[in-house]
Amino acid sequence: MKLATLKDGTRDGQLMVVSRDLKTAQLADGVARTLQKALDDWTFIAPQLEQLYQDLNQGRARRGFDFESKHCMAPLPRAFQWADGSAYVNHVELVRKARGAELPQSFWEEPLMYQGGGDNLLGPTDDIALFHDQWGIDFEAEVAVITDDVPMGATPDQAHQRIRLLMLVNDVSLRNLIPEELAKGFGFVQSKPASSFSPVAVTPDELGDAWKGGKVHLPLLSTWNDKLVGKPQAGVDMTFNFPQLIAHLAKSRNVRAGSIIGSGTVSNKDAKRGYSCIAEQRAREMIAGGEPVTPFMAFGDTIRIEMLNGDGKSVFGAIEQAVTQAEARKVF
Amino acid sequence: MKLATLKDGTRDGQLMVVSRDLKTAQLADGVARTLQKALDDWTFIAPQLEQLYQDLNQGRARRGFDFESKHCMAPLPRAFQWADGSAYVNHVELVRKARGAELPQSFWEEPLMYQGGGDNLLGPTDDIALFHDQWGIDFEAEVAVITDDVPMGATPDQAHQRIRLLMLVNDVSLRNLIPEELAKGFGFVQSKPASSFSPVAVTPDELGDAWKGGKVHLPLLSTWNDKLVGKPQAGVDMTFNFPQLIAHLAKSRNVRAGSIIGSGTVSNKDAKRGYSCIAEQRAREMIAGGEPVTPFMAFGDTIRIEMLNGDGKSVFGAIEQAVTQAEARKVF
Repeated sequence: MKLATLKDGTRDGQLMVVSRDLKTAQLADGVARTLQKALDDWTFIAPQLEQLYQDLNQGRARRGFDFESKHCMAPLPRAFQWADGSAYVNHVELVRKARGAELPQSFWEEPLMYQGGGDNLLGPTDDIALFHDQWGIDFEAEVAVITDDVPMGATPDQAHQRIRLLMLVNDVSLRNLIPEELAKGFGFVQSKPASSFSPVAVTPDELGDAWKGGKVHLPLLSTWNDKLVGKPQAGVDMTFNFPQLIAHLAKSRNVRAGSIIGSGTVSNKDAKRGYSCIAEQRAREMIAGGEPVTPFMAFGDTIRIEMLNGDGKSVFGAIEQAVTQAEARKVF
Repeated sequence: MKLATLKDGTRDGQLMVVSRDLKTAQLADGVARTLQKALDDWTFIAPQLEQLYQDLNQGRARRGFDFESKHCMAPLPRAFQWADGSAYVNHVELVRKARGAELPQSFWEEPLMYQGGGDNLLGPTDDIALFHDQWGIDFEAEVAVITDDVPMGATPDQAHQRIRLLMLVNDVSLRNLIPEELAKGFGFVQSKPASSFSPVAVTPDELGDAWKGGKVHLPLLSTWNDKLVGKPQAGVDMTFNFPQLIAHLAKSRNVRAGSIIGSGTVSNKDAKRGYSCIAEQRAREMIAGGEPVTPFMAFGDTIRIEMLNGDGKSVFGAIEQAVTQAEARKVF
């Protein structure tokens, strides 16, 4: 099934089911007010949502309405855990190579992962509002899963069974803040502002054969200022699959329902597939010609991120954002 | 006022108000079911909680009962943002010195901070259950604040006004997992398992004169296996105050209501004040004698963390935990 969250003025929005073709939706308020509430009690709630979903797809919804991405918050507008892996090691290798750094062998055996803040996740059409474009604003197109409870020490096989939903992420990065921040050794804080999510989250069965081996075998399209710049296959060159990423996170902690785990920038070795973040293109330019040519994003730029299934249909709807200059405000 | 969360079998527990002397409590179910709900609408909810608190302190509570820490979850059992600073740079300097690393000058000017997961915060008497004590289990006694909404770009002065509650934290660390993890450059994930919190969170006014300049001017007591090992003054040698830590986090993001920001291990330059984490003691031993002597925690060890006010009364109640060996489980 497909789920989304309606902007209703509250912090967590209102859960709704969305038809498979993304054309209609129906509030799930009789079943669960929010997606977190559904995830908190998934075994009980999911079958009820599934029923609404069947009704909607068969045109039997009593209160259906036109679905529009612009009325969506992130499927999970606030998350208690947002951890992002770097599962496409090709991306990491390219970026490091461009700055003359070797890739340690361990990077092929042990996932890289950072934990971010889940208090302010952006919806699919929310602006990427930042103070300065000199910060080096970059998109990062990724796939992410939402888990049920995963006990500490879970194996990848056990973790696999606890994946409830999938969605797309734009893990916005501030490239010019990263070197100084990583040099301090504690990971990203300021260089990873709020991330944005696709309008719709889907259960793994929606992907059919494209969900295999804990990976999504579909192309991820990134369109920057109306130009298609990337269409890598998300199932190719993914060194660590989602179950492995979750197990990595769960090594020394329980991972609780509603945790979001991202794949990291989707990246194929085949350069013809383009790029899912500008840093990677700049790295290729650096390696080829000694200096980066493509600039980072400027105010007014747009980014569209979408994944199409075998029939060319959008699976999750599109992230469609503009980069804008933020104004300082004193209170919300 | 003083607030706590009763273990009631739900994921977020039931909010209650606790008397100033920590002897009695009353459910706040008529006002707000959870602390997050209170924080989501603080201006409206806080005065109602304050009224309950006044009634309780004056012996006029209609449904008062004995307050017991062991029935508490963390005040905020799930948080959408949990970011921990290293505001006591003395601690960082000692640990680095012990391994022969210089402290960059920038560490005195720009806070170190990492983001952790808020999905599984432990209550004050919950076990620290881990698979292996060879991981180098250590406590870290800290102070933390819970914020209201803080807009991106907030100044320290603005951030100061958005601090709603204070509490204590045991930011458990797995010292033997840290070197390898930090070497990868993305910060802590596996080396920072679930953190634990004091039974009670208090509004800044409860601290009276001890809340000054964005710091808590009271001693923080750490008692390891019934032996007092640390009593540093939390207001001394705190290089970055809480408003500065919050402003650091808010540089490129909105920080939303219910965000927890920790101080990092409380540490005084005066070695007679003892230590708030074993790593610091081992660092001092290393510097003095060339090798660490004090071992990390073993299964069966206990740790008690508490803060006393000028009258010798407990402000937040005590974190009182045992380290136990976890058993693998398949599902929750």
